[in-house]
Amino acid sequence: MAAPRTLEQRKRDALDRLKNDVDAWVATAERGNGTPYLVPLSFLWEGATLLIATPTSSPTGRNLRATGRVRIGIGSTRDVVVIEGTVDALPAGEISDDLGDAFAAKTGFDPRQLSSYTYFRVRLRRLQAWREENELEDRELMRGGRWLVPD
Amino acid sequence: MAAPRTLEQRKRDALDRLKNDVDAWVATAERGNGTPYLVPLSFLWEGATLLIATPTSSPTGRNLRATGRVRIGIGSTRDVVVIEGTVDALPAGEISDDLGDAFAAKTGFDPRQLSSYTYFRVRLRRLQAWREENELEDRELMRGGRWLVPD
Repeated sequence: MAAPRTLEQRKRDALDRLKNDVDAWVATAERGNGTPYLVPLSFLWEGATLLIATPTSSPTGRNLRATGRVRIGIGSTRDVVVIEGTVDALPAGEISDDLGDAFAAKTGFDPRQLSSYTYFRVRLRRLQAWREENELEDRELMRGGRWLVPD
Repeated sequence: MAAPRTLEQRKRDALDRLKNDVDAWVATAERGNGTPYLVPLSFLWEGATLLIATPTSSPTGRNLRATGRVRIGIGSTRDVVVIEGTVDALPAGEISDDLGDAFAAKTGFDPRQLSSYTYFRVRLRRLQAWREENELEDRELMRGGRWLVPD
């Protein structure tokens, strides 16, 4: 097992993943009965927020509109970034041309060309990053929407 | 993009992942407010059910006991197996020696040696498997706990 990374290194690695990874595991839930949903989706990192898109009537789309809550896993299971966030729905017609183009270039699909898709902007509340067990302590790099680690 | 696999091939590939992959993304949710939780956990495939273990008081442990529902993602985001299941809690003291040993050998950790862990047995209700977009149709290989595809 490699030595644990410094917090600063973990933050740099997490930001690299946010910029360069294409896909994430997106977990949402129904209100009421505690039914979880999980699906891989492509994303665009906007510098401080994360943009995803899904069919408006899909379970993920319905859950995000109903609860405004998401938890996202990025990376492999032994080198993860886990995010808790709140989401705002952005109808495809409200996305700027530049942002729509950037999303399509990064993800390889363009929800503006598809019917009944909604974009969701994820505002990060909490971010954790760890590789192996020796990094579980100190895995929290952001809390309450604020980085705990300087750049 | 590769040609879509046959259903039979997808089932074989899914079973291979269940047997050989070590880690999965495990999604659960709180009752009531629709707060999702997501964490990577190691698992053991028992032939028809899947065994995981987590600290009894962790969010995943609490959610599993409260809701009995789980959704699990295995594989990379472009070669996935997604499972919906119901769970039964198995206190560490109720695990047979053989099963506990098999779990420890597969996952590299032995919850019997740790305090306050609970095993959970996942009974599969639904299983989907796909790689790229051209496999989204026909991604459902199991429904209502029954394979839709012969061996």
